Amino acid sequence: MESQFKPSDDGYEAKVRDSFNRQEIMKTVNASILSIQPGEVKLEFPYQTNLTQQHGFIHAGIVATVLDSACGYAAFSLMPKGAAVLSIEFKINFLSPAKGKRFQAVGTVKKPGRNITVTEGELFVHVDGGQKLVTTMVGTMMSVYDREGIEN
Amino acid sequence: MESQFKPSDDGYEAKVRDSFNRQEIMKTVNASILSIQPGEVKLEFPYQTNLTQQHGFIHAGIVATVLDSACGYAAFSLMPKGAAVLSIEFKINFLSPAKGKRFQAVGTVKKPGRNITVTEGELFVHVDGGQKLVTTMVGTMMSVYDREGIEN
Amino acid sequence: MESQFKPSDDGYEAKVRDSFNRQEIMKTVNASILSIQPGEVKLEFPYQTNLTQQHGFIHAGIVATVLDSACGYAAFSLMPKGAAVLSIEFKINFLSPAKGKRFQAVGTVKKPGRNITVTEGELFVHVDGGQKLVTTMVGTMMSVYDREGIEN
Amino acid sequence: MESQFKPSDDGYEAKVRDSFNRQEIMKTVNASILSIQPGEVKLEFPYQTNLTQQHGFIHAGIVATVLDSACGYAAFSLMPKGAAVLSIEFKINFLSPAKGKRFQAVGTVKKPGRNITVTEGELFVHVDGGQKLVTTMVGTMMSVYDREGIEN
Repeated sequence: MESQFKPSDDGYEAKVRDSFNRQEIMKTVNASILSIQPGEVKLEFPYQTNLTQQHGFIHAGIVATVLDSACGYAAFSLMPKGAAVLSIEFKINFLSPAKGKRFQAVGTVKKPGRNITVTEGELFVHVDGGQKLVTTMVGTMMSVYDREGIEN
Repeated sequence: MESQFKPSDDGYEAKVRDSFNRQEIMKTVNASILSIQPGEVKLEFPYQTNLTQQHGFIHAGIVATVLDSACGYAAFSLMPKGAAVLSIEFKINFLSPAKGKRFQAVGTVKKPGRNITVTEGELFVHVDGGQKLVTTMVGTMMSVYDREGIEN
Repeated sequence: MESQFKPSDDGYEAKVRDSFNRQEIMKTVNASILSIQPGEVKLEFPYQTNLTQQHGFIHAGIVATVLDSACGYAAFSLMPKGAAVLSIEFKINFLSPAKGKRFQAVGTVKKPGRNITVTEGELFVHVDGGQKLVTTMVGTMMSVYDREGIEN
Repeated sequence: MESQFKPSDDGYEAKVRDSFNRQEIMKTVNASILSIQPGEVKLEFPYQTNLTQQHGFIHAGIVATVLDSACGYAAFSLMPKGAAVLSIEFKINFLSPAKGKRFQAVGTVKKPGRNITVTEGELFVHVDGGQKLVTTMVGTMMSVYDREGIEN
């Protein structure tokens, strides 16, 4: 699929990958990058007991963690060189419990902007014969320019 | 402080503590219970490198994780015996980056109900001379009765 | 387009239309029904000076009003006979100001449920050669059974 | 009550009042200003049949309309001279149906910022002996500088 967005930074893939690799939490949840397109990032992660809530499902906040990174990097992929990305806010709906062996988080840009980028995220669980949607997110991301301590 | 809510289950504190102890993710983030009141639960957790995003702050999703548990257990404390709690949705605003050594998450019930409970959460970072608010959450929690695989 | 949902109430279209006709606010904003499918309702309304904010655009809350009705009725179309629908909560993102002559609000069901239905809404403005997306909504709707004063 | 915020624009009250008076929708819903403090704006409006949903309550979107204006003007009151205010997004929870004769919307700033201001809103209905909270909002407002067609 061809992306609908033109990245302003040719090095968008490398910068997303670099930043992702600096997110220590992604190692803790064993998340990896499936694909990086302009305005769309797919991550995946496996079920792990140490990420569960009281019923043995993946905790809502961990679902939020991976979706937030997918959405943030989808936004980041379209930002100009030198901009960093921060989450301003997100909203997440849990359609079904996150139970399964393997999860895919898809973050996409709904509306890019110089300062504000609106994104959407969907979490799928792998099931026999396909994928099942279990969570949706809407997140607002901010481009940060020249702020100390906040780079890429 | 006296709580404004009367719990319908006298064993509210024990059941919150039991359920919290079964959340493996709480061990992963080293969260502990500060207090349990009817309709209000306080948790705390320390800074850990393995929970960080690319700028070295606690990842937005981990902030969401602890706030979601605080809010969920605040709701759970008011639920009748036999009900379990699930997050339907939440919305979170990041007022400042979660940077600091120690964080406190406060979940409170805004409106209890038989099926739906609306909660609010606030994350504070310990700073010299007090606490600074860094994140706010609004979460909608559902009471689940008699559903297989979902207990307490 | 064939709907992916099977309505449990054969009279879904008539009941949506009846309920819509009882929403006095829909007359105030001059909204009308474009289409009713199982799980999808489209409404439209024209620009009116008496609905504007300070810059002469349609007020954010009026956008929310029509989207909430579209989403609520999308949910209602899948509810069993005798259920009424209430909005529990929604979240709305304003991608661009609502400026234009004619607006279309599309509400769709993302996940139906006996008690809780998750919906999405999109507001489009008619522009030369097509439609432009200006607002997105995610709304959680509740089926209400046998509650006094709340019918259909 | 003394406000915790210092407005950067001494003319904050006049500019809020001027902008409010240009919101035609406020006349349509018969809203009026109760008070303007730095970072806090209170509005009120009466029940009107032409604002109702199908059960005869004030429509959720009209509740959102007045809360959004209260929150937006709370943010605007702290913005520098020359800035205009736009809603980026909001999330609203309906704790009870908006039924009653008179409603008060209180918008407050939770975190001001040069570009982004986070606000909270609460809608109360007047009942015997006081006020009852029926709705809560969290809204993110943007300061807009030098954009054509968007002033104050």
